[in-house]
Amino acid sequence: MAVYTEITDEELSEFLVGYDIGHLTAFRGIAEGVENSNFLLRTEKDGRESDYILTLYEKRVNPDDLPWFLGFMRHLATQGVSCPLPVCGRDGEALRTLAGRPAAITTFLSGVWPRHIHSEHCHPLGEALARLHQAGDSYAPVRPNSLGPDAWRPLLEDINGFGGPAAGKLDYIPERVSDEIISELCCALDRILATWPGGHNQVDLPRGQIHADMFPDNVFFRDHQVSGLIDFYFACTDLLAYDVAICLNAWCFNDDGTKFNETFARQLIAGYESVRPFSSAERKILPLLCAGAAMRFALTRMYDWISTPPGAMVTRKNPMDYIHRLRFHLAVDNSGVYGV
Amino acid sequence: MAVYTEITDEELSEFLVGYDIGHLTAFRGIAEGVENSNFLLRTEKDGRESDYILTLYEKRVNPDDLPWFLGFMRHLATQGVSCPLPVCGRDGEALRTLAGRPAAITTFLSGVWPRHIHSEHCHPLGEALARLHQAGDSYAPVRPNSLGPDAWRPLLEDINGFGGPAAGKLDYIPERVSDEIISELCCALDRILATWPGGHNQVDLPRGQIHADMFPDNVFFRDHQVSGLIDFYFACTDLLAYDVAICLNAWCFNDDGTKFNETFARQLIAGYESVRPFSSAERKILPLLCAGAAMRFALTRMYDWISTPPGAMVTRKNPMDYIHRLRFHLAVDNSGVYGV
Repeated sequence: MAVYTEITDEELSEFLVGYDIGHLTAFRGIAEGVENSNFLLRTEKDGRESDYILTLYEKRVNPDDLPWFLGFMRHLATQGVSCPLPVCGRDGEALRTLAGRPAAITTFLSGVWPRHIHSEHCHPLGEALARLHQAGDSYAPVRPNSLGPDAWRPLLEDINGFGGPAAGKLDYIPERVSDEIISELCCALDRILATWPGGHNQVDLPRGQIHADMFPDNVFFRDHQVSGLIDFYFACTDLLAYDVAICLNAWCFNDDGTKFNETFARQLIAGYESVRPFSSAERKILPLLCAGAAMRFALTRMYDWISTPPGAMVTRKNPMDYIHRLRFHLAVDNSGVYGV
Repeated sequence: MAVYTEITDEELSEFLVGYDIGHLTAFRGIAEGVENSNFLLRTEKDGRESDYILTLYEKRVNPDDLPWFLGFMRHLATQGVSCPLPVCGRDGEALRTLAGRPAAITTFLSGVWPRHIHSEHCHPLGEALARLHQAGDSYAPVRPNSLGPDAWRPLLEDINGFGGPAAGKLDYIPERVSDEIISELCCALDRILATWPGGHNQVDLPRGQIHADMFPDNVFFRDHQVSGLIDFYFACTDLLAYDVAICLNAWCFNDDGTKFNETFARQLIAGYESVRPFSSAERKILPLLCAGAAMRFALTRMYDWISTPPGAMVTRKNPMDYIHRLRFHLAVDNSGVYGV
């Protein structure tokens, strides 16, 4: 929730010369996207004002991945998915440099992300996700999921070792994760990875481009419809049903993850299947994928939790919220629970 | 630089029912204003979109002062000063409640605040400040300056005592300000307060409504003109020339305060005097007022510096930047240095 990089007027003016979007009339830092610096950019051209978002990519995004992300957004937008459309400079390039960082301008999307989730959000969300998957089908470039199952064991080992030698390099004392939680996660991880679908030849478990981070603050609604999907910087090529599993985790529990909302899940699945019905293999494997998704967010939150100084103004998200979800999914023996 | 308060959709919808500004089409957190939570609010009414800023007042603003601030902004806006105009609800009230906090909607101002100050910013800035002073003349309510000279000695005593008993109540070890700096500030403060103009009967030192925080990030420019003044939450009734002294400190030094820029000062003063010429008493007292303004920002920055945990993500501003300025002003023996 912060603007990290300040841009001088000279840098900004010089940067905008590279675009044919008119002259700058307003410029405000936007408090969203923990990973990058975002600014509202308003320009006037031929007497008409337009809004854009200027994003500076901070160090958590690998610059080598940016052409893939921007290409994916452009592809989706041209396929009719309402997502930020990267704006090309006069030289035809959307990815440029500003204040020493990779930067891009995209279109501004209207709508409001839901602070409280209601049942009526879930059907349109499911539809929008399925449309994204369909539209992504014709985007050929592949980006492996860098936070997929291969990353989970190393993450857990890092977390377990955090109070160890690494702690000496920090200027604060990191919190220890309890041995019980570490043991529980080790067991759960063994169980998940033992049956996780491997190989790319499983035709009944369709792979494709997924958003991989479709949390409520990345989905704008307007007039009860999805008006925009944002933040494609975790998008990657993976199992399509895994993206649904992420949404089931993100949208269909109370905040602390102790209560699953079956109505929300049914609506989400119904919305998704109204556009792209699941294969029977996808239906069957959904509890495992949901447990994997819960594991992914529990681990990255835990990592961020222990590597963030306690006094920092950044909101540390409680990893327990996802450990509760993980326990729920591991106890599910039938996908019917999710409404499929 | 942070959104502090999250608002639920229900709270926001219910809040907006109280206004006749149309229905919500976009809502984004704005990363500006350390003191309050600000949101860009876009609404559509009769097929036309309009932008507003929604501000939630956080605990550093005294709610009792809000009617004065909002009244002042409304007064200035109706007098032609380009500042946020508070929007009244259907009941005629601009100050309302949202998410348990005082809240107001104001108009959105275009323009960009200068990240690097150039000579050409300073003349229009001076003009805008003088116009603000003139327009404020007909705003009768009085708000004493809570960070004026009466507040400086208690602040310095708090800073000096910070490593003492108060430290035990904090969960971190506050930095100590060196004894040399404390001594230097005590001497400077004695000297400043000994000759600070007192009483309200000095007709040759005009008093009125001042902005009192006109730093570059509170002044928007567009097409080389001032297009907006924002952040009136330090505004108060005080010596008009003291507001100029604040601007001389904020705009006419390099960042760390070690180098005074006489050209910028000349432009600022020329701009100001093109609208409202100084009295001879104001001219004469300017070095003292500049020293007082430097003292005020040195003290509040020092207080914030030592009372902010080192790991916090909030930008701590170095108080030395203003101690350097203070030393400069105390060595000035002639207002000609400032270009008057």
